Amino acid sequence: MTRDAAHRYEELAGFVAGLVDAGTLDPGDRAPSLRRIAREQRVSLATAIQAYRLLEDRGVLEARPQSGFYVARRTTAGPEQPAASAPARRAREVSVSSLALELLEYAADPRLAPLGCAIPGAEVLRAERLDRCLARAARTRGAEHNVYTAPRGDPALRQELARRALRWGQALAPDDIAITCGCTEALALALKCVTSPGDTVAIESPTYFGLLQVLEAQGLKALELPTDPSTGIDPAALERALDSHPVRACLFASGFSNPLGATMPEAAKRAILALLAERRIDLVEDDIYGDIHFTEERPVPFMALDRTGRTIYCSSFSKTLAPGYRVGWIASRRYMPAILREKFALTLCGPALPQTALAEFLSSGGYDSHLRRIRRTFRDTMERMRQAIAASFPPGTRVSRPAGGFVLWVELPGPVDGRQLLSEALAEGICFAPGEAFSASGRFTNCMRLSCGNPWNERLARDVAALGALAARACGAG
Amino acid sequence: MTRDAAHRYEELAGFVAGLVDAGTLDPGDRAPSLRRIAREQRVSLATAIQAYRLLEDRGVLEARPQSGFYVARRTTAGPEQPAASAPARRAREVSVSSLALELLEYAADPRLAPLGCAIPGAEVLRAERLDRCLARAARTRGAEHNVYTAPRGDPALRQELARRALRWGQALAPDDIAITCGCTEALALALKCVTSPGDTVAIESPTYFGLLQVLEAQGLKALELPTDPSTGIDPAALERALDSHPVRACLFASGFSNPLGATMPEAAKRAILALLAERRIDLVEDDIYGDIHFTEERPVPFMALDRTGRTIYCSSFSKTLAPGYRVGWIASRRYMPAILREKFALTLCGPALPQTALAEFLSSGGYDSHLRRIRRTFRDTMERMRQAIAASFPPGTRVSRPAGGFVLWVELPGPVDGRQLLSEALAEGICFAPGEAFSASGRFTNCMRLSCGNPWNERLARDVAALGALAARACGAG
Repeated sequence: MTRDAAHRYEELAGFVAGLVDAGTLDPGDRAPSLRRIAREQRVSLATAIQAYRLLEDRGVLEARPQSGFYVARRTTAGPEQPAASAPARRAREVSVSSLALELLEYAADPRLAPLGCAIPGAEVLRAERLDRCLARAARTRGAEHNVYTAPRGDPALRQELARRALRWGQALAPDDIAITCGCTEALALALKCVTSPGDTVAIESPTYFGLLQVLEAQGLKALELPTDPSTGIDPAALERALDSHPVRACLFASGFSNPLGATMPEAAKRAILALLAERRIDLVEDDIYGDIHFTEERPVPFMALDRTGRTIYCSSFSKTLAPGYRVGWIASRRYMPAILREKFALTLCGPALPQTALAEFLSSGGYDSHLRRIRRTFRDTMERMRQAIAASFPPGTRVSRPAGGFVLWVELPGPVDGRQLLSEALAEGICFAPGEAFSASGRFTNCMRLSCGNPWNERLARDVAALGALAARACGAG
Repeated sequence: MTRDAAHRYEELAGFVAGLVDAGTLDPGDRAPSLRRIAREQRVSLATAIQAYRLLEDRGVLEARPQSGFYVARRTTAGPEQPAASAPARRAREVSVSSLALELLEYAADPRLAPLGCAIPGAEVLRAERLDRCLARAARTRGAEHNVYTAPRGDPALRQELARRALRWGQALAPDDIAITCGCTEALALALKCVTSPGDTVAIESPTYFGLLQVLEAQGLKALELPTDPSTGIDPAALERALDSHPVRACLFASGFSNPLGATMPEAAKRAILALLAERRIDLVEDDIYGDIHFTEERPVPFMALDRTGRTIYCSSFSKTLAPGYRVGWIASRRYMPAILREKFALTLCGPALPQTALAEFLSSGGYDSHLRRIRRTFRDTMERMRQAIAASFPPGTRVSRPAGGFVLWVELPGPVDGRQLLSEALAEGICFAPGEAFSASGRFTNCMRLSCGNPWNERLARDVAALGALAARACGAG
């Protein structure tokens, strides 16, 4: 089979699975017939058969003799999702343990199974073409670029980013964008611009530990909001929180939040924006996972829906192409002067050649087919990992079912000592991210985040099974 | 003449000029005879003659018929140095204008004469070998490095840095060092670790505007100390300031401060360290210009003399090799855990490949001969620019006479509107850094900083003369 043919049937499988995830097809529904899907999607019947067999393997479809394919009942397809979180209703100062730094150290250790940090594997990213752009830029344009870049960063890269944003209806000029050292600097700059130490910031719960560290470093209080693993923040719950707390800014993901994988429906985003506009509250948006959508369309960023200019958009290439390049960006017309002042005082500007290389990589095309490829891999690993968790973790374990990104949130049925479980896992060469790292209030000790950023293989299968056995023992003892 | 021979006579000229700058030879002293210097420095008589002629051209030596060479009287060799600064004795909140950002924009404009930002020209840096290291790393080790680095940064680079520090008696382990996004991030991290918003930081005056922006962004107050253009901060003056102000930290240059070019004598450094140890005040040290010494030896960093662990050392490759790479570093054993926590919340980590390339560049040797070469160029440009200023700026203009670095501080004899002068200069295609950018209290409006980071040439000569004419007109009108 040619590589193109392989892509076609995987793409079709992804398309159908997207219909299921989006709720277009419910469990028990009859899937489109092979003939129909082949005609509509312009593939051969053989490709359609292969795609449906793959979906059968993954537990998404079930074949019924003489009757065709049906969407599998979720009860048999995998574990249940966790319930929405219910954090304490008060803002608190953030003091995160050293766990986050430890996890980053573990991520740099190639001997450990890479379930801990949300970093895609190099064999998934296959960034050789980008590396060649960098090698060429270094060879031919080194002297020209051996200067500080303009404060906003490379103009060609900013133009490429503005062009891409146009596709999802986000009208940005290149000068509305500044290049940053990953999404971390973008988020740090955004918060610096719209808050002062002591202010309260409303966040999802659980939330990415790096974000908690940014809040802590800036002396900000975190107000953790109830968050549903599928739909994220409920606008009504946000309104109640704003009624009772002096929230200065909100910090939400555009889609596939880390660690839950939640995506707020567009209507909820519009309701939230209306609420924030009314109260003149700024929104910092983290879109780092937005391009990794398993459904047909990417989630629309808040910024594309916002007419007030109060949304500051943050993203990076770290999850989709080049974690090693540390190139992120921040977009806002309204706050750009303040952003540049803050950036000047944090990092001055970023390195020139990696930005040039990325600009060339984007302008020469192929990033979209790259994205399609990595989405397939992440989706496949995620689906298999959910099945592996169902098979080896203690009964009653719940697992998130994100429609994008590459992390799973696992809720164990009993109380466990996450730090203890982590050290047992490390002793077996397995790393994961303990749940307590994702809360400012010490919650989620019976949870863990598992990264699906690598291709599924026997070693991963073995490691997830081993982790499940450790988790079962820990729950039994708890 | 071969290139090597050219280097030898320039090197010898630099050596003799160093004796003059260091005060080993005073104005009016007889210089070592040609025969003696040729023998002692193991060069040919022809090389010695060429070196002395070069020094004569530069106004460092004077030939007297039948008598040999003498050190030129400084009154004829160039303008006087400015007096020590005398800032107001009170700490104040920092609010810098947008001037600094504007200057960075101008620096990226190749049409402007590069006198504004302190960025060495690419033709001086000749970083092709480093660029080749980067190209090779990108080609051969891209996949391996397409991950987040360990929080401290590339271990091989940190080892090279620790080895270099050993030469000036600074005992550092690689783990005492963290790689940063230039010296700016290093300084920002250091201040974050040892101060809180509202604290007072004692600084040199005038001081680098980027530093003032860091103070402003962190809500710190600046206490500007009297600073001598040759010897920097006087320990007795510092003691008086500490007696009357609640200083939480000091922020001083190791040598060739920006913009004055001052270097504190080692005895003064020891006295300052004793004072700070007694009062438990932390010192943040900026050594970014330390390797660009025109004298035989580099200034000893505070950190190498400090036994308390209260000094945090900051530097980068931006002034000596690769402003475009944005690789700096911060060193401290005592504060490393806090530094890493803050770094995690600012930028997470830096890009991997530029660090790998720098590690390879350093380990393969040749950085020292690179440094010798750029020192000669900077010194030559600086000497010629002082002469050009003496020739074309209004009488009474004073100019600093640094023993390293590549910026000159120019004090005009009358009051001028620096912003107005800058816009007139920009209209003629010339950029400079107006004095007011270097103070938190609006001082130095009759001053400017000129960069000597490019090889001297006719265009620079013309531009400095044109700037002098504009300055003369401005002073006349003032």
